[in-house]
Amino acid sequence: MKNDTVTSPRGFLAAGVHCGVKESGKLDLGLIACRTGAAAAAVFTTNKIFAAPVAISRRHLKSRTIYGVVVNSGNANACTGQKGLADAVRMCQATAKQMGVDPHEILVASTGIIGHRLPITKITGGIKAAASKLSSSASAGLNFVKAIMTTDTRPKQAVRRLEISGRKVTIAAAVKGAGMIAPNMATTLCFITTDVAISKPLLQRALRHAIDDSLNKLTVDGHQSTNDTAIILASGLAENATITKQDARYKKFAVALADLCDDLARQMAADAEGATRIFKVVVNSAATKTDAQRCARAIANYDLVKCAIHGGDPNWGRIICAAGSCSVKLNLRKLTCKIGSVMVFRNGRPVKFNPRAVSKIIAAKEHTITVNLGAGRANDFCYGCDLSRQYVTINADYHT
Amino acid sequence: MKNDTVTSPRGFLAAGVHCGVKESGKLDLGLIACRTGAAAAAVFTTNKIFAAPVAISRRHLKSRTIYGVVVNSGNANACTGQKGLADAVRMCQATAKQMGVDPHEILVASTGIIGHRLPITKITGGIKAAASKLSSSASAGLNFVKAIMTTDTRPKQAVRRLEISGRKVTIAAAVKGAGMIAPNMATTLCFITTDVAISKPLLQRALRHAIDDSLNKLTVDGHQSTNDTAIILASGLAENATITKQDARYKKFAVALADLCDDLARQMAADAEGATRIFKVVVNSAATKTDAQRCARAIANYDLVKCAIHGGDPNWGRIICAAGSCSVKLNLRKLTCKIGSVMVFRNGRPVKFNPRAVSKIIAAKEHTITVNLGAGRANDFCYGCDLSRQYVTINADYHT
Repeated sequence: MKNDTVTSPRGFLAAGVHCGVKESGKLDLGLIACRTGAAAAAVFTTNKIFAAPVAISRRHLKSRTIYGVVVNSGNANACTGQKGLADAVRMCQATAKQMGVDPHEILVASTGIIGHRLPITKITGGIKAAASKLSSSASAGLNFVKAIMTTDTRPKQAVRRLEISGRKVTIAAAVKGAGMIAPNMATTLCFITTDVAISKPLLQRALRHAIDDSLNKLTVDGHQSTNDTAIILASGLAENATITKQDARYKKFAVALADLCDDLARQMAADAEGATRIFKVVVNSAATKTDAQRCARAIANYDLVKCAIHGGDPNWGRIICAAGSCSVKLNLRKLTCKIGSVMVFRNGRPVKFNPRAVSKIIAAKEHTITVNLGAGRANDFCYGCDLSRQYVTINADYHT
Repeated sequence: MKNDTVTSPRGFLAAGVHCGVKESGKLDLGLIACRTGAAAAAVFTTNKIFAAPVAISRRHLKSRTIYGVVVNSGNANACTGQKGLADAVRMCQATAKQMGVDPHEILVASTGIIGHRLPITKITGGIKAAASKLSSSASAGLNFVKAIMTTDTRPKQAVRRLEISGRKVTIAAAVKGAGMIAPNMATTLCFITTDVAISKPLLQRALRHAIDDSLNKLTVDGHQSTNDTAIILASGLAENATITKQDARYKKFAVALADLCDDLARQMAADAEGATRIFKVVVNSAATKTDAQRCARAIANYDLVKCAIHGGDPNWGRIICAAGSCSVKLNLRKLTCKIGSVMVFRNGRPVKFNPRAVSKIIAAKEHTITVNLGAGRANDFCYGCDLSRQYVTINADYHT
């Protein structure tokens, strides 16, 4: 899949360069460009403390057409006040100048340390260098994804291909993930390109839906960073008749987009700081969807569950305890818990099971915990990862 | 303070024995007795999944007089259904028989692993043995606190002495703490004895108030266990005129009790699994008390803050990020953060500070983080502890 990058859909160019934000010499500035212009949609962090690029991109998203996205890693441009806002605007201006468009037609994102001004001269220099390297090659796309990495151990990308109205449509994405759990070092950024022709409101709707069931279902520590951003650009160059209502074609696109985002969420969980395995918590028979989601998150966020999973321990008591203490409606007489396909707790009582067999399920790269609250008909799920000594090492030994 | 135990107030006997719940041979069954009878009050876990002894003690608390408390460690008697309830009743029956009182006049608590039946014959044998050893000596009190330990590394006790109506009053407590963060291995139990003469409703009021500002302010992982129980017994043998209204004497007692519980909470935080240091998060200028408490807890529970504190890192970005993402009202232009007495973030902007000096503050045994939300007049606080590799080791390598 190395050849599948954000440049795979028709109309997209990319580049990634080192401009000097990161002292390591690694790539730290990336560009995505769509010279023919793209419909754009985005979802942003819900943190009340949001970074300057989030404020600027929210504003620029009102433009009818977007021509490019500029991203730096190594510095989040968060908690930087009015000067930070001016820096984010300057990133858009520099990019717009290279592309011959209006600064309002450029989106911007940053990721890295909080509370420091951007080295803006290095960055504008980097933008110039990146613009000269813009290319539709796979290696250019790979450079882009490398340029947005922080504590990620590997680039994370995904592609989906489908047919709409007899036209071949491609959706591709680059994401950085480890950072979801490390808002000081990094944040979650997701950039999706597609050549489908679709109206802006429906693009926004499909993105919101896809993110809600994927990146928003991933919890590493329960907190959203100051910079979380997911952007989708649609060039329309697949030349399908433009999708303008929620018909079968819209659904086909939305399903493919959701599947792509689910893939990204799993990759992010698997590459979370210190994580060695991921798990899915499914909560069934909740009184409300909100209860189902709250309970799934409570279990996936519970350090004792995360530690038990790290140790391959079928410790259902911790799962039940987390369910009981998260303020959701439950019926103890119907409360049931499965690890993989093995019932460990049924109708409020422990079930005898083979601990070695269940330990093996937990020790796998990915497994599912299913909890039935016996309180209604709502279901939801959540992805989590284990908690390792390595997580503590990464986050305790890093110094401001 | 070795001589200050739950037997310090007049009228109390205690004992601790090994009866065989713990395979290690350590003490695992404790008794507190008050032959003259005591007024009793208690607060219990808010977890919807509560253990059998919690159900039984809630019921027995309706008795006018309580003569004893029986506690075992090593097994929580939680998620054990009807049979577990019968076991908890049998613990009360066996204790009542030894003391010549009604089983409804005995309270019961358990702590340890979830989902296993109690070895009830061993326990009733232990009750008999403990009853024969009941004593008002300090060593008997020390045996009691040892008998309620699970992953605690040391016994935790506290005593306060005061004068009420010219009479000397003593309040003493034994607590187990590490377990607050390990509901499968352990839970939080707190037993307080006092010789003050006070009406039952005011005893309950004073206990609730003291616990709310101490044990309930301690967060290690944000979850309450299935067994959390705090019990206070008042023998009245100080022979002060009984406190029956919220007058100055009540306040004096309530303040001493709150101070004692604060002491216990700090001891518990310091002995939390893997903890090397504790911290207090104070949130000022919140819109509501609920917001203040939610924000303090969010910061104290935030793994990235806990890791930073473990590493002695003045990483205020993580504190601000936690504040921003916990759904409380805040005014970014007034948002301020201090570590110890050093301002690190003022009115929404970073402040230059000496990182080495602040690092030193964080590396101390105890420090305070103060956040000003700039959104109102409510204040609250919370205690937390750092997150270490040792925590992961304890909780990942333990096997069900």
